[in-house]
Amino acid sequence: MDLRPLISNMPRWLSGAADAEGMVVSCRARLARNLSTQPFMPKASEADQAQVIIQVLEAAQRSSQLRAATFFQMNSLDGVASRLLVERRLISPALAEGKGQRGVLFSQDESLSIMINEEDHLRIQAILPGMKLAEAWSQANTLDDELGASLEYAHESRWGYLTACPTNTGTGLRLSVLIHLPALVLAEDMERVMRALAQMAFTVRGFYGEGTNALGNLFQISNQTTLGRSEEEIVASLSRLIGQLVEYEKDAQETLLAEARSQIEDKIWRAYGILAHARILTSQEFMNMLSALRLGYTLGLLKEVPASFMNHLMILTQPSHLQAGAGRVLEPEERDVRRAELVRQRLAELEAARGAGAA
Amino acid sequence: MDLRPLISNMPRWLSGAADAEGMVVSCRARLARNLSTQPFMPKASEADQAQVIIQVLEAAQRSSQLRAATFFQMNSLDGVASRLLVERRLISPALAEGKGQRGVLFSQDESLSIMINEEDHLRIQAILPGMKLAEAWSQANTLDDELGASLEYAHESRWGYLTACPTNTGTGLRLSVLIHLPALVLAEDMERVMRALAQMAFTVRGFYGEGTNALGNLFQISNQTTLGRSEEEIVASLSRLIGQLVEYEKDAQETLLAEARSQIEDKIWRAYGILAHARILTSQEFMNMLSALRLGYTLGLLKEVPASFMNHLMILTQPSHLQAGAGRVLEPEERDVRRAELVRQRLAELEAARGAGAA
Repeated sequence: MDLRPLISNMPRWLSGAADAEGMVVSCRARLARNLSTQPFMPKASEADQAQVIIQVLEAAQRSSQLRAATFFQMNSLDGVASRLLVERRLISPALAEGKGQRGVLFSQDESLSIMINEEDHLRIQAILPGMKLAEAWSQANTLDDELGASLEYAHESRWGYLTACPTNTGTGLRLSVLIHLPALVLAEDMERVMRALAQMAFTVRGFYGEGTNALGNLFQISNQTTLGRSEEEIVASLSRLIGQLVEYEKDAQETLLAEARSQIEDKIWRAYGILAHARILTSQEFMNMLSALRLGYTLGLLKEVPASFMNHLMILTQPSHLQAGAGRVLEPEERDVRRAELVRQRLAELEAARGAGAA
Repeated sequence: MDLRPLISNMPRWLSGAADAEGMVVSCRARLARNLSTQPFMPKASEADQAQVIIQVLEAAQRSSQLRAATFFQMNSLDGVASRLLVERRLISPALAEGKGQRGVLFSQDESLSIMINEEDHLRIQAILPGMKLAEAWSQANTLDDELGASLEYAHESRWGYLTACPTNTGTGLRLSVLIHLPALVLAEDMERVMRALAQMAFTVRGFYGEGTNALGNLFQISNQTTLGRSEEEIVASLSRLIGQLVEYEKDAQETLLAEARSQIEDKIWRAYGILAHARILTSQEFMNMLSALRLGYTLGLLKEVPASFMNHLMILTQPSHLQAGAGRVLEPEERDVRRAELVRQRLAELEAARGAGAA
């Protein structure tokens, strides 16, 4: 399968920073749903699973939003292709690595998608750039309503939506926000923040890497509770929390600037210099340099590289994207060279487009 | 005293790499001479010293090469100004820090100079860019002849020229070559090379720093022997030696390229990226980055930054040059910020002059 059209496409959730500071990269709403007409995944035969796929595709055909969606049967994809979809956040590693009849359906701009036969029959996902949590929820909700008109969902009035794993039962709603918190990490404040979030029943994970060692200082924050609260309450409480985190981060950034402005400027511009000129870039170093650029953008010290550009680069430099671009499997050393080449080329294009006058 | 005209001036010995590879930065010939009409320095009174200055200035007036030379009386200079002359290699630290009547006389392009009343009454110096050892010797020799027509040198037919320290007696000639040997350092071969040179009666010093820890991988190689060999023999033996060192270095560079081309390219271009964008640069980091650029130039991997540009930058970024440019004494932290600013600005000018199209 030729994945190049997909690589050249820029997913909508990466298309810009809706918040002025560029701290919040994206918001995602995910709904777990199951059909009452078929056995749940742990007990479903391949024939049952195929039936689920057919029913979901038919329902999508009748929806306004996924009528022209792209569908991939997972069995038809090789390793690079399915990992590429993981890197684009269209599917989970579990769907990529699973067995049986599985598929994914997604809109052209990739903001709406459905994983079919992952842990549940359906995982409806809406993902948007910047701090648009309510909108992401609303889009997922609208699609859910449209699909619900054709599909018979497993639902009980007492429990709400039934799911394969009880942690999703109820609303079936998992919201998550991808946020960049470099100053809190530098100030060694993240451990405290993460403990507080856990007490408030929110989960924090590194976007890459784990916990406070999150690569690129990117954290994914999501709700733990799906039961006993309305969807609107869940959206409101996570929104409030993100608002507070943004304020904490801003305070930490102001302190940094007041105490060590030259060092911060140096860190940011060195990162730019290295990204623009290095011939070898591991993904770890790339993510660290990108975090410095992102901080520069947030602080207004390096406005030349827009947040959307950084987000796009973050996706394109992942292993399977590099390999799909090359049209073959690459050794890690080759990927580091290709990654540096890609980053260099894109930054040179950006600079050329801006005209002369880079600092 | 306003030293700004001096800072903006580019000394001739930095003006270009005469050797295609840019390995040999410069060659220097220095002649120690004393007047028989005055006591040697250890025994000279201030009045004697003043007499030496007057006689040397008169002789210089009559010479073809130093008729329009600049003269500084060391007592009239403050610390920054005299260290600035040291940084330009016009005077030695000993002259800068000495007592009594001392001075320096130099041609407009700084290729010819005389230190008056350092260890000897006269230290005649000729310094030229690239591998021009014979020319440097010949220029110093011509000036020596011209001055000798007016001055009565201390000379004995058996010993040759008499000097304050017996290690200079005879020809009074000290030749030195400033050479960049990054691959021999990387290959950890310099210790062996230095031992061999010592056995052949050559001295190796770091241009900055000592021994194999030479900052920027720059080594100054000079003859130890001044007695029992003619000037032409000294010139010929050091020239042969430098030719061999250049070959060793080339071999080491070829091995490096064959074994780790990507890593070498990465090192060179990262150095460029850091120099072009950093906001803080210590002199040590600057010299290391400059060494990578110089290697890039020698290998033909980064021809955009000419050797003469690098040499000039190496002088301008020294502490007293930065302070003279600022017009005040700077704290080390301020110097690191100013150094980064200067390097960034010069590289941006270079890039602008080249037109768009930096890699």
